[in-house]
Amino acid sequence: MLAIVGVGLIGGSVALAARRRGVVERIVGVDHDSTALEIARERGILDEAASSIGAAASAADLVVLCTPPDVVANQVLQAARMSRPGTLLTDTASTKSAIVRSLAGQLAEGVAFVGAHPLAGSEKQGPKFADADLFVGRVVVLTPTNDGDEEAVALLQQFWESFGAHVRRMSPEQHDAALALTSHLPHLVASALAGTVPAEVASLTATGFRDTTRIAAGDPSLWRAILESNATDVLDALARFETQLAKFRTALEAGDRAALGALLAAGRNFRTSLDRGNCNTRD
Amino acid sequence: MLAIVGVGLIGGSVALAARRRGVVERIVGVDHDSTALEIARERGILDEAASSIGAAASAADLVVLCTPPDVVANQVLQAARMSRPGTLLTDTASTKSAIVRSLAGQLAEGVAFVGAHPLAGSEKQGPKFADADLFVGRVVVLTPTNDGDEEAVALLQQFWESFGAHVRRMSPEQHDAALALTSHLPHLVASALAGTVPAEVASLTATGFRDTTRIAAGDPSLWRAILESNATDVLDALARFETQLAKFRTALEAGDRAALGALLAAGRNFRTSLDRGNCNTRD
Repeated sequence: MLAIVGVGLIGGSVALAARRRGVVERIVGVDHDSTALEIARERGILDEAASSIGAAASAADLVVLCTPPDVVANQVLQAARMSRPGTLLTDTASTKSAIVRSLAGQLAEGVAFVGAHPLAGSEKQGPKFADADLFVGRVVVLTPTNDGDEEAVALLQQFWESFGAHVRRMSPEQHDAALALTSHLPHLVASALAGTVPAEVASLTATGFRDTTRIAAGDPSLWRAILESNATDVLDALARFETQLAKFRTALEAGDRAALGALLAAGRNFRTSLDRGNCNTRD
Repeated sequence: MLAIVGVGLIGGSVALAARRRGVVERIVGVDHDSTALEIARERGILDEAASSIGAAASAADLVVLCTPPDVVANQVLQAARMSRPGTLLTDTASTKSAIVRSLAGQLAEGVAFVGAHPLAGSEKQGPKFADADLFVGRVVVLTPTNDGDEEAVALLQQFWESFGAHVRRMSPEQHDAALALTSHLPHLVASALAGTVPAEVASLTATGFRDTTRIAAGDPSLWRAILESNATDVLDALARFETQLAKFRTALEAGDRAALGALLAAGRNFRTSLDRGNCNTRD
C-alpha cells in the first residue's frame, strides 16, 4: 500500500505514475483540502481517502509526503508513530537540510526516512493537473544521510526510476546549495521582477517578460516556505546575483561596451548550453 | 515599392506580412549579410536585393529599417539622401529617443521619418524564422515627434494595422521609459541570472530556470546596442528592481514571514493579471 500525504500536483502525479507502472496495488491519500481529495477520487488517483496521516501510514509500506517543506518534518513524525516496522517514509520537498535536521534522532528503529526532490512541477497546482508522465526524463535527487539505510535508498531509487526519472544522490546540504541557485533564486528573481513593473505599463509587456516572470505565478505560501527553509543558501545565491547585476550597472554607467557585451555573451552562453542537452527537461 | 533594410527575423516578417496582405507590389531588401539575403530570396521574402541602402531607398515609397538601434539614425540619413520627395522612412528598433535626437533637423523637406517599435520578436534570429503572422495581435508603438507629419503617421498606422497589429502612439521618451521596465530590464535580469549559475549545477536546472532565462539567449550585440542606447532609463529601471530585491533580502534576513509572503503575492498578482488578458501576446 502506497500512502500519499498531500494530493496536489506532485502527490497526484506520484500516485498516477505508481498506478500506471503497476508498482503498487492500492493507494491511500490524505489531504486537509476535501475538494482536492474529491478531485483525486474522481480522477482515479486514489483508492481511498484516510482521515489522518497516522491512519494512512498505519496500512502503508511506503509513505510519500508531498507537502510544503515547513510541514514535512512534523508530518513524518506523525506518520512514523503509526507506521509498522519496515515502512519507508519519504518526501518531495524542494529543500532538504532543515527537514533532515529536524528528524535527526527522532525516528524509531525500523522506520526509515529518505528525502527526495523531483525536479518537476509547474506553476499549475492541484490534482486536476496531475500527470502520470510528469517525472519522465526528470532528475529526482535523493538525499540520504550517513545513518541512512542503503536498502531503503535503493528501494526509493527503484521507485522513482520506474516512473522514468533519472535519480541522483547528494547530501541534503549539497542539494540545498545547488537548488538555491537553480530554482529558489530564479523564483525570487521572477517574483521581484513581476513586482517591479507598474500596472500602467503592463500592456507594453510581451513574450519576453511573460517567459521571464512565468514562475512568479506559483503559490506564494509554498514559495515562502521554500525560501524560508533555505534562507542561508538563498541569501548566498542572491548575493552572487546582486554581484552580477552590479557588473551590468557598472558597465552601463561607464558606457563600457566591451564589458557589457561580455556580460551578455556569458549569459547567452550558459543559456544556450542548456538547450544543447545540459538541462533537466524533456522539451 | 517597399524597401527593407536588415532582412532578419523582423525585416523578413515585415516583408512577408506586406506581401501576404497585398499592401505592396514589389519588395527590395538590403543586408550586409549575403547569406541572409540568399535565404530571403529563397523563401520569397524579397523580389530583389539592392547593393546599398541608398540604392534600395531611391526606388521606394516606404523604407523600413529593421536594424539595431545604434545604426538606425545613420542608415536613415543614408536612405534619406537618395529618397524621392514623399518617401516615408521608419524603423523597428527597441529604443526610440536616441534615434529621434540624432535625426533632429537632419532630414530634407519632403522626407518623413516616423519611429516604430513592434513588440514582437523572439530569441530566434534571421530570415529563416520570418513569419507573416508575427505581428498579429501584437502592439506596435509609433513615436511621432511634434514636428511630425500627421499624414505619414496615419499611413504608417494603416501599414501596421493591415498586419493585424494594435497600434499605439506615444512620445519617444514615454516609450523608452516604459520599455526599459517591460523589456530591457527583463533582458538584463535574465542574462544576469544565467550568468550567475555555475556550470557544475546546470544539470539541476529545470523548466522554471529555462523559462526565466530564455531571452538571455538573444543576440548579445543587439542587446548591447539596445541597453546602451537607453542606458539612463535602463539604470532607473534597474534601481527599481534592486530596491525590490533588497526587500526580499531584508525579509529573508529578518525571517519576516508576512513581508516575504506579501512580496511573493505581489509578484504573483501582477503576473497572473497578464494571463487575464492584460498583456501583448496571442498565447
